[in-house]
Amino acid sequence: MTGSNLCLPKVAVFGTSTVSRIIVNVLQQEGFQIEAIWGQTPEEAEFLSRELNIPYFTSRVDDVLLRKEVDLIVILCTPALHSQIAVKALGIGKHVIVQSPSGLNQDETLRMVQAAQYYPKLCSFLSNGLRFLPAVTKMKSAIQSGFIGARINLVDVRLNMGSIIGKKYSWLCDDVMGGGVLNVFGAHIIDLIHFLTEQSVTRVHGTVRTFTKTTKYIHGIRQIKSDDFVSFQMEMSGGTFASVTLSSQVCGFVQEFHVSGDEGRLIVRNGDLFGHQQDTSDEDIILFQDVSQCSSGLEDPLLPSIYLNGLSTMFSSLADLFRATAVDESNNAKFRSPSSDSKAKFATFNDAQHIQAVIEAIRTSSKERCWTKVITDDWWK
Amino acid sequence: MTGSNLCLPKVAVFGTSTVSRIIVNVLQQEGFQIEAIWGQTPEEAEFLSRELNIPYFTSRVDDVLLRKEVDLIVILCTPALHSQIAVKALGIGKHVIVQSPSGLNQDETLRMVQAAQYYPKLCSFLSNGLRFLPAVTKMKSAIQSGFIGARINLVDVRLNMGSIIGKKYSWLCDDVMGGGVLNVFGAHIIDLIHFLTEQSVTRVHGTVRTFTKTTKYIHGIRQIKSDDFVSFQMEMSGGTFASVTLSSQVCGFVQEFHVSGDEGRLIVRNGDLFGHQQDTSDEDIILFQDVSQCSSGLEDPLLPSIYLNGLSTMFSSLADLFRATAVDESNNAKFRSPSSDSKAKFATFNDAQHIQAVIEAIRTSSKERCWTKVITDDWWK
Repeated sequence: MTGSNLCLPKVAVFGTSTVSRIIVNVLQQEGFQIEAIWGQTPEEAEFLSRELNIPYFTSRVDDVLLRKEVDLIVILCTPALHSQIAVKALGIGKHVIVQSPSGLNQDETLRMVQAAQYYPKLCSFLSNGLRFLPAVTKMKSAIQSGFIGARINLVDVRLNMGSIIGKKYSWLCDDVMGGGVLNVFGAHIIDLIHFLTEQSVTRVHGTVRTFTKTTKYIHGIRQIKSDDFVSFQMEMSGGTFASVTLSSQVCGFVQEFHVSGDEGRLIVRNGDLFGHQQDTSDEDIILFQDVSQCSSGLEDPLLPSIYLNGLSTMFSSLADLFRATAVDESNNAKFRSPSSDSKAKFATFNDAQHIQAVIEAIRTSSKERCWTKVITDDWWK
Repeated sequence: MTGSNLCLPKVAVFGTSTVSRIIVNVLQQEGFQIEAIWGQTPEEAEFLSRELNIPYFTSRVDDVLLRKEVDLIVILCTPALHSQIAVKALGIGKHVIVQSPSGLNQDETLRMVQAAQYYPKLCSFLSNGLRFLPAVTKMKSAIQSGFIGARINLVDVRLNMGSIIGKKYSWLCDDVMGGGVLNVFGAHIIDLIHFLTEQSVTRVHGTVRTFTKTTKYIHGIRQIKSDDFVSFQMEMSGGTFASVTLSSQVCGFVQEFHVSGDEGRLIVRNGDLFGHQQDTSDEDIILFQDVSQCSSGLEDPLLPSIYLNGLSTMFSSLADLFRATAVDESNNAKFRSPSSDSKAKFATFNDAQHIQAVIEAIRTSSKERCWTKVITDDWWK
C-alpha cells in the first residue's frame, strides 16, 4: 500500500447478479467504497443496496453516471448495455471497468475504443482477471526469462465446466446477447493467449455448437441458442499456434493452459504452475502452487475460483494504481493518467476489440467451415 | 475358462522392441505359448529369444510364417512391414493380430482387408486394446442402456503425454513410416469413437504439427518429421460431433474421453468411468474405478498402462475365443471361425481401413486447410 483508501475513487456498480455481489465484496475488501448500485428493476437494485449497504440505488443509467461523488464505474450487467454505459461514463469523466464480453459486436466495442482514446487519462479496462492470476504472472516471467526457449510454439488450452445457464432465461441463453462459452470464457482465454504470447491472432478455425437446447428450467418456446461447446485453432502473428477447447458439458471447473517452446513447457492447471525443461527431468515440477483462499461464500459458474482470485488481484492492483497516482501527482489533478508501466498489465478496450474480432472470425469460420482471417475494423482511423 | 491352454494356437511374434517384450509377457500370462520370435537383425531376435525363453528366432519373415507349429502371428514390428506380413500369414492359414497403425496407407491396409475377406475363418484383428478396457466396456453398456439419452451429441477426447520418440532414430520419427501421435495414438482414438458411437466418420478437419524437430539424441541431418501435436474434429454418420486433441508436449500420460448426450454424460478418465445425468446431481459420480494392477516391470511410452490393461483383457478374450471354438467345433476342423458374437468386440481390418482413411483425410485437411471428406478406397469390390 502506497497511500490510504481516501484517494480511491468511489464506485458505482451496474448489475445485481451473483457475480455483481461477489465483485462488490471484492471491491470492498480492496478498500473501494461502493456509492451506488444499478439494477434492471428498482426492486433488484433496492434489494442489493440494502443487502450490501450501498447508499444509492436506481434502475436509471443516467442517474448513476451523473452522481458527482462516483468516479469509477464497474459494468457487470447484461452485455447489451456494456458499450453504451461505458461510452457515456467516459464522456462524463468516469473511470470504467467492463466485464467481458465487452459488447455485443465489434461496432459496439469500437465505440468504446474511440471513447477510451478520447479520454486517455481515464482508466478504461476490462475485468480480465486471469492476467493477474499469480500462476499466470509467474508463467509470463518464466516465458520472458527463456524457460521454454526463444519462441513459443504451441498454446494448448482446455476448459471443462458445468452448464453456465441458470434457472431463468437470460442473456446467457443467447449468443447474440453475449451468452455462451465462447463469449463468456473464450474472451478471457483469447485475451490470455494474446497477453502471454504478445502476439495478435491472424487466422482462426473454429467449431461452435449448441448441444443442450433445453433444460429442466428452460424449455418450451424459448430455447437455448448460446454455444456450450467450442473448439478453435488460432494462428498468431509471431508464428505460435494455439488450440482451445471449451466445453460446458461436464461438472465442476478445470482449466489447463499449456505453453510449449523448443526448450520446455509451462502449464497453468487451475491456479498452479508446472514446468518442465527438455532434457532435464521426466517429471513436470511444480513452479508455483496456489494456496490462496478466495471465497466470499457466494458461488457462480460465471466466476470460477481462479477467475475470482485473478479479479481480486486485479482490483488490488487497480487500488495501488490510484494510490500511486495520488502520491505522484499534484492535488489539483484529481485523476491523472496512472503510469504506463503499472497500467500495462490491464486489458484495454483495444484488447477488447481484438478479442471481439477473433470471436467473430471463429463464428464465421464455424458457419463457413473454413480458416478465417481475423479482421479488426478500424474505420475511425 | 472354458478349456485348457492346449487348444490355444502357438504364437510367433514379429518385433523385438520393449512393446514386444511387454506383449510377450501378456501373451504368456494368458496361456499362449510363444514359439518363435522375429527381429530386424538375427542378433536382436536371438537376444530376445534367450531372454524370454522362445525356442526359435530368426530375422527372415518366411522362416517364421512357414513354421507349421505356429498358428497365430502377432505383428508388432515397424509398420512398414505390417501389411506384407499380415497378408502372407493369412495366405498360409495363420491367425493374425496387428498392432496399429495397421499399415502405411490405405493401399496397404486394403490388401489386408482383401486377405482377411478371402480367409474369413482366420482371426484377423487389430491389437486395439482400448475397446476391451473395463471402463470402456462399462461406458458402452451405459450408452446402450440410455444413460446419456437416445443419441450421442459430442465426443470430446484429450490425450496428453510425453514424447514418444526414443533415444534412437526409428520409424517413430517419421509419419510416412507410421510414426507420430496421429498414427500411433490417433488410430486407437478414432477406432474407439467408431466403436462406441457405432458411427463412421464422414468429414474431418484437422491440424497436424511437428513442433519438436530435434532432441538431445536426434539431431543433425536426421530430423523428426512425425507429428507431436494433432487437433481434429470429426462429423460422424449418425450426427455425432467429435473433437480430439493429441499432444506429446507434456509429461506423463492422461487420457480423457467424454461422451455426452441430451440426458447425461460419461467420462473415461484414464481407467476410471464417471457419469452424470442431467437434472440429477451436480457432481460427476464414479461409475467404475479401475483397481487393476497391470505391470510387467517394463514401461514404454507407446503402451501407457490403460493401453496395456486393455491389451491384457483383449488377449484374455482372444484365448477364451479359441477355447470356446475348440469346445464347440469338432476336432477335425482345427481352426473354425469363432462365433460372431464374441468376435464382434475386436477391431477388424475393415476397421483398420476406416481408421486409415480418417487419418489420411485429417492429413489432407491439415495441408489444404479445409474440412475434408473421408474417402474409403473400395476398388476391390
